[in-house]
Amino acid sequence: FAPVIILALNPRVKTHANLHSTASKKNEKKHWKRNPERSCDSCVNLENNFDDIKHTTLSERGALREALRCLKCADAPCQKSCPTNLDIKSFITSISNKNYYGAAKAILSDNPLGLTCGMVCPTSDLCVGGCNLYASEEGPINIGGLQQFATEVFSKMGIPQIRNPELPPAHEMPESFHTRIALIGCGPASISCASFLARLGYDNLTIFEKQKYIGGLSTAEIPQFRLPYEVVQFEIDLMKDLGVKVTVKERWGGCHILPTHQQSNVTDINNHAGKKARVRRRSPDEKCEFLPFLSPHEVIMKDGRVVGLRFCRTEQQDDGTWIVDEEQIVHLKADFIISAFGSMLNDPEVKAALEPVKLNGWGTPEVNSETMQSSEPWVFAGGDIAGLANTTVESVNDGKQASWHIHKYIQSLHGNTVSTTPKLPLFHCAIDTVDISVEMCGIKFPNPFGLASAPPTTSAAMIRRAFEQGWGFALTKTFGLDKDLVTNVSPRIVRGTTSGHIFGPGQGSFLNIELISEKTAAYWCKSVAELKADFPKNIIIASIMCGYNQADWTELANMAEDSKADALELNLSCPHGMGERGMGLACGQDPELVRNICRWVRKATTIPFFAKLTPNVTNIVDIARAAYEGGADGVTATNTVSGLMALKADATPWPGIGRGARTTYGGVSGNAIRPIALRAVSAIAKALPGFPILATGGIDSAESGLQFLHAGASVLQVCSAVQNQDFTVIEDYCLGLKALLYLKSIEELHDWDGQSPPTIRHQKGKPVPRVDELIGKSLPSFGPYLKTKTEVLARYKKSLKDAMSNVITDTSDSGVPQRNVPKKPIPNVKDVIARALKHIGAYQELDNTEQVQALIDPEMCVNCGKCYMTCNDSGYQAIKFDPETHLPVIMDSCTGCTLCLSVCPIIDCIKMVTRTTPYVPKRGLPVNPVC
Amino acid sequence: FAPVIILALNPRVKTHANLHSTASKKNEKKHWKRNPERSCDSCVNLENNFDDIKHTTLSERGALREALRCLKCADAPCQKSCPTNLDIKSFITSISNKNYYGAAKAILSDNPLGLTCGMVCPTSDLCVGGCNLYASEEGPINIGGLQQFATEVFSKMGIPQIRNPELPPAHEMPESFHTRIALIGCGPASISCASFLARLGYDNLTIFEKQKYIGGLSTAEIPQFRLPYEVVQFEIDLMKDLGVKVTVKERWGGCHILPTHQQSNVTDINNHAGKKARVRRRSPDEKCEFLPFLSPHEVIMKDGRVVGLRFCRTEQQDDGTWIVDEEQIVHLKADFIISAFGSMLNDPEVKAALEPVKLNGWGTPEVNSETMQSSEPWVFAGGDIAGLANTTVESVNDGKQASWHIHKYIQSLHGNTVSTTPKLPLFHCAIDTVDISVEMCGIKFPNPFGLASAPPTTSAAMIRRAFEQGWGFALTKTFGLDKDLVTNVSPRIVRGTTSGHIFGPGQGSFLNIELISEKTAAYWCKSVAELKADFPKNIIIASIMCGYNQADWTELANMAEDSKADALELNLSCPHGMGERGMGLACGQDPELVRNICRWVRKATTIPFFAKLTPNVTNIVDIARAAYEGGADGVTATNTVSGLMALKADATPWPGIGRGARTTYGGVSGNAIRPIALRAVSAIAKALPGFPILATGGIDSAESGLQFLHAGASVLQVCSAVQNQDFTVIEDYCLGLKALLYLKSIEELHDWDGQSPPTIRHQKGKPVPRVDELIGKSLPSFGPYLKTKTEVLARYKKSLKDAMSNVITDTSDSGVPQRNVPKKPIPNVKDVIARALKHIGAYQELDNTEQVQALIDPEMCVNCGKCYMTCNDSGYQAIKFDPETHLPVIMDSCTGCTLCLSVCPIIDCIKMVTRTTPYVPKRGLPVNPVC
Repeated sequence: FAPVIILALNPRVKTHANLHSTASKKNEKKHWKRNPERSCDSCVNLENNFDDIKHTTLSERGALREALRCLKCADAPCQKSCPTNLDIKSFITSISNKNYYGAAKAILSDNPLGLTCGMVCPTSDLCVGGCNLYASEEGPINIGGLQQFATEVFSKMGIPQIRNPELPPAHEMPESFHTRIALIGCGPASISCASFLARLGYDNLTIFEKQKYIGGLSTAEIPQFRLPYEVVQFEIDLMKDLGVKVTVKERWGGCHILPTHQQSNVTDINNHAGKKARVRRRSPDEKCEFLPFLSPHEVIMKDGRVVGLRFCRTEQQDDGTWIVDEEQIVHLKADFIISAFGSMLNDPEVKAALEPVKLNGWGTPEVNSETMQSSEPWVFAGGDIAGLANTTVESVNDGKQASWHIHKYIQSLHGNTVSTTPKLPLFHCAIDTVDISVEMCGIKFPNPFGLASAPPTTSAAMIRRAFEQGWGFALTKTFGLDKDLVTNVSPRIVRGTTSGHIFGPGQGSFLNIELISEKTAAYWCKSVAELKADFPKNIIIASIMCGYNQADWTELANMAEDSKADALELNLSCPHGMGERGMGLACGQDPELVRNICRWVRKATTIPFFAKLTPNVTNIVDIARAAYEGGADGVTATNTVSGLMALKADATPWPGIGRGARTTYGGVSGNAIRPIALRAVSAIAKALPGFPILATGGIDSAESGLQFLHAGASVLQVCSAVQNQDFTVIEDYCLGLKALLYLKSIEELHDWDGQSPPTIRHQKGKPVPRVDELIGKSLPSFGPYLKTKTEVLARYKKSLKDAMSNVITDTSDSGVPQRNVPKKPIPNVKDVIARALKHIGAYQELDNTEQVQALIDPEMCVNCGKCYMTCNDSGYQAIKFDPETHLPVIMDSCTGCTLCLSVCPIIDCIKMVTRTTPYVPKRGLPVNPVC
Repeated sequence: FAPVIILALNPRVKTHANLHSTASKKNEKKHWKRNPERSCDSCVNLENNFDDIKHTTLSERGALREALRCLKCADAPCQKSCPTNLDIKSFITSISNKNYYGAAKAILSDNPLGLTCGMVCPTSDLCVGGCNLYASEEGPINIGGLQQFATEVFSKMGIPQIRNPELPPAHEMPESFHTRIALIGCGPASISCASFLARLGYDNLTIFEKQKYIGGLSTAEIPQFRLPYEVVQFEIDLMKDLGVKVTVKERWGGCHILPTHQQSNVTDINNHAGKKARVRRRSPDEKCEFLPFLSPHEVIMKDGRVVGLRFCRTEQQDDGTWIVDEEQIVHLKADFIISAFGSMLNDPEVKAALEPVKLNGWGTPEVNSETMQSSEPWVFAGGDIAGLANTTVESVNDGKQASWHIHKYIQSLHGNTVSTTPKLPLFHCAIDTVDISVEMCGIKFPNPFGLASAPPTTSAAMIRRAFEQGWGFALTKTFGLDKDLVTNVSPRIVRGTTSGHIFGPGQGSFLNIELISEKTAAYWCKSVAELKADFPKNIIIASIMCGYNQADWTELANMAEDSKADALELNLSCPHGMGERGMGLACGQDPELVRNICRWVRKATTIPFFAKLTPNVTNIVDIARAAYEGGADGVTATNTVSGLMALKADATPWPGIGRGARTTYGGVSGNAIRPIALRAVSAIAKALPGFPILATGGIDSAESGLQFLHAGASVLQVCSAVQNQDFTVIEDYCLGLKALLYLKSIEELHDWDGQSPPTIRHQKGKPVPRVDELIGKSLPSFGPYLKTKTEVLARYKKSLKDAMSNVITDTSDSGVPQRNVPKKPIPNVKDVIARALKHIGAYQELDNTEQVQALIDPEMCVNCGKCYMTCNDSGYQAIKFDPETHLPVIMDSCTGCTLCLSVCPIIDCIKMVTRTTPYVPKRGLPVNPVC
């Protein structure tokens, strides 16, 4: 029983204050420094090293965290502040739900240059500037980073854009859609305009580009480290997918329609940076200084060479006007002067060719700011040349705006009128065409997502709105006979405490003591009838509850069937209130009662019915089997878990009713109960193969929904996730499920987990070269090690420099991922149901000779030592932690328990790998000595 | 069935791209702008308005969120970078756990000016500079804000500092501790030095202050808006609590010992700012410009007045040296020039009085940088005068460092030696003296917190370390007879998915398929004997498991009793693996088996034993009753909840064993199961009053522990929270429980919830004046409203200005909270057990005539509209949302369901208040028409 030495570094409860002199501490802290030195002493050569320029870049972990933090506001100001009116809240919702295609679709639908804009938008002036989280301590959301992340993941999927599937085939389109349209200059405005025109159905679009490369300003003037060429290529490829032609090195000639874009110099300092300078705003700590409030006054020459520049200060007067004060001067030395002012149209050939388009005082076309039309109705302009856009995203919007008015103009030439409300089609790809309908008990569900019998179905108006948003089915809130009418208490629905002290949406659980519907059976029967009439393709299941009484069940089931409900759900599981009346869970915990109630209902009705089960039983399979035996067509698993959510420090509960602050056990819902529900669904599916299961309990995304399908469910009921947000999440769920099914058929992506690509070796989402391959050991990223690492990488980057090709002159090897084509059929929902069951079984079937051990990637490590601490205090003392480098090392005593991975903050920094030596448990003392 | 119009604003699934012209959008987005305008056009008069200067200030919500984000690293760099070596990780842990006294104690123990430093420390150069989260996208922790938050909450508790309770009473202290000690100048170094000397036991300490106010630089030179006078007063009062005397307006005379502090000018730009200027670093967007790399060259005068200043640029050469380049000049106009350079000792009287202390070239005393001793052994110096400290916190550390060496010096004069390891006492107050021991079944537990039978008790060495850190008791990991020895599979302990896609520590749940101990009964019995011998006051409970066999249970119980275990726990609940062998939960789900096993063990042993129950049963009370009937001394409630945590997108489970990726249902632990465990404990306590309960299931803090005590538990078992962190959390749990018990007796704090003070009306933690009281309506904080609001507040602030007293000249009304004294006895643990039970009962006992409605405070609202969305799509359509101001309004149709409060991101922005009108449910259609 020797002391375990490796616990030495672990923290200890303090008994005394610490003592370190100020002088020694000043020295010591340099070792741990992670943030940049204020002085320039530590500068290293950054030539050709642009690794961390894009500070908004996010790894998957960072993106999920940031997306979770977003409040998904009503009427969100971010969207209202985005030049392309991008539905930011929606795409962030999709990222939260790991539906990266859903996010990319939302982005590209409104902005065909969504990836470019995610990388170069001056977001603080746009979307981020309006973020409601400015009113919180944690500050606004990194919207640009999220946009970049989602579109990049989609680009890696390698899936082409397709025409709007609702359009007739190209050859059946009216003549007007074959109009020849020329776009001049292949920059953001043209790419955007052409993309939208192509989505509208135009099929004779050509972009003429005078340069040998395409992309306009994105390629020509934004440095590679801010916007890699692959990004531009990805977006141009998506446009070309729709048949848009691009002709390079061509001057433009006489075409019928001329929407115009012209590369010009940069007007936005954020988008402009010398290719070898490292530029950031606001950052005197960085290597580049910004001198505000200065107006250039005089270039100072000596011997015919520039030697300096003299500025005057600009000052604001009390009346708000600005003056240039020639008495306050700043004199700086300079070897080179680079002008970054906006420019105007100055190519005489271009000017001549524009005739008869009227130009304004700036030498650019006069443009209607709403229609983007020039003085010539057949010529439209956007981007820099139109004088409205200061940023890439505004140029994109010019092109988008113009596309609608070009459409309107062309159609008017053919005597057609277009809708007064603009209807620009969304982005589409093959994923959108996946069929996610599913049949269960002869009922066809347009998609497997529906609303559980719960607060989101409090009224028929709510179900109506839910169907309008795309929900496949809905349960009514449970209703009973008039003699069983209830009146609620309040408060009654409270936030969970299962995810820590987190406030706001994204609650991991709720607890409610809400009863069944306060509305009458008459209301619900009338509502079902009306809803069925208005939404014949949507499925409505009436949720009903009675006491243990055949007459009551018969009467109520008949009423519901008469209302034309597609099916019934018998609520045998409400965990609070109703049980005391001999209803709900009071019936559902006894197989005998369940069997009998099902028999009564079977006798009373011809439509399918499902028993909603409670998880608050010793063995839910026994109850499911009883329902099966009673003639139920399936079961819903599960209702909420009975619980007491929280007590305040004064011992009163929350919710607490009235002056006495009284409470009763309520129903816990949401993600916290998902493991219980997944277990229930899979156990029932294994025990009763083919017996339909409607799953509920923590379904908050396509990703979690698919888990329930794999576990054996046919359709999916949602409540808590809607409480956290609103009905529009359905769009994300459907798209997400389509994407998950589609990706199953792409062999090239076999190493993805759903929509998550394999984790690259990175720090903060930026790829890191393996320092250990360069110098034979790993280095952490702080203090002296960071300095060494930066120097090593700088030398490495410099050595690469000569080898680097100029990507602008040679775009053939662009790094754009190849297009992936499914080589096997896309599975339907029914094909994936119960697929996981073969992996689930008894403990005895697990093989304890197939063991794993942990493997840490030191290049991804953030040196927190969480692995070390958990392994020491909750595991097997198998991780060492270097007290100076803070790098952890796994020892052979690792038993593969996986706790280290479970608490590591960086995805895939720790992996479990197959153990190569036999596992020998430590028995402590040999078997069977005398104790 | 009229359409519900108020859904109008709710988001809708998009069918088409949005279209808005660039020109109209440019205008529109201004309405939603929250971040500062780049131009100065919108400047308002900020005179006397310092509201948002302290941008690091945190509300409770912000603090909890930030504390949760902290990784609580091993060997944390933040601590290593703090001049006072503050245990930052520990205090942030305490904040996460709502133990604000625990946090304040950790802070004040190492830094008696912890609140001041939380407000003025240049943290990015210190603690924050080393934060490992620099390696993450979300960036480093706001340590200063957290430190400020915790100490401010503690200051509001109004609890005085006390002497180290381990010291003898003052009159019994040796003579040396009555040595007269004078401290010159009541600044940070002296306050710190005097505090530590007083904690060591010195009782004749006087600080001489020549000014009429105290606090030194903190009061004299740091502007009020950065450091309010109350802060300084709070810290000085804590020092005075220990008997330190302060004499103001006194010049110092001949004293025996002279640790020296002298107010001087500021040497750190961060701590210095003109009282009317708004100063921030790095922020050209703000109203103050920093011009770096400039050296003052010449003051320009005209007619005897300053009119400007000329600077030369400083430039770094290739060799790293700096030069002043007289050819690069900057000429600025100026009416006033304020010098903020550090100064030296220049008062001739002070200089004379310092004789014979040797001065150095700067005119300040020569000081040993380790001992802070001057050339005269009886004179010590710290702070500015010692020349080592650049910041307040370093001055504090000088005083701390000096205190130990003064102690050493004085003791040496009395012929005593002090410990070679410095032992400066921690901060203490009455909370530390609260007795949290508890007796159960005749066993005295030093505190109610112990380790559950689980991974943290894998080995005896781990239990040893746990006891050393302060755990009151520990269960062994469950062991069985040799014939039942097990070998684990791997992977087997995985992170929960119940709190969303969050990686790292703070997991809301874990799932494990780990079996009982791999070690032999012999190992455990020997270990128990050794641990009991070494830790006689700690309680060890042997956790044992057998099949349903009297001989086995008898043999194992006897072995365990013979090892001198204090008690036994019968594991009748392990949910995976063991059940298939007829053990664990296979025994614990049947009351008959539980009753018999308990009878067997009762017969076999004389020591207390407890049955560990499984929650995976229909009614846990039945099982507890069986244990009671079988003669058990109590029960442990509950073991883990059986579940399936997650399936990957390819339908394989996690954990998945071997090439077949097989799994079995595992045990879910952690906060996700707390509602289930709280329900179980309270239900058993109600059914079997006085029958002891050992609670487990989501205990992660004193706050959650107290909930279980209130629910009826006597002692508390922890596992998942240790897996997330390490054994040292015990200190936080004990202190937190002491604080919660102590505060129950402070009548003045009756409106606190535990350690949480009532929420002030605030934005980002900063109090907000009620704009509606000034102009008759509320205004949100964005765009045009923000502008109006800022103007209104500026006018208001200005109107207050004349009325404001100069707090420096009049400190009598300092705003420091009064000292609170308990007027009733501090409860013991046994006094609070089961206190909540009277609030818990049947649903029928709840009163549906006592209803509530929601009330929103528009001044705290962040305009996200989450309340509006959840009320519409999951509630009762009782909230309106203004499309322009984004302010929500509750309508009378509110049913008090509480969903809005449950998803509101701001604590107490929404409150539930008593409904004043009768509640009439909406039945939809009248009762009983024909359907």
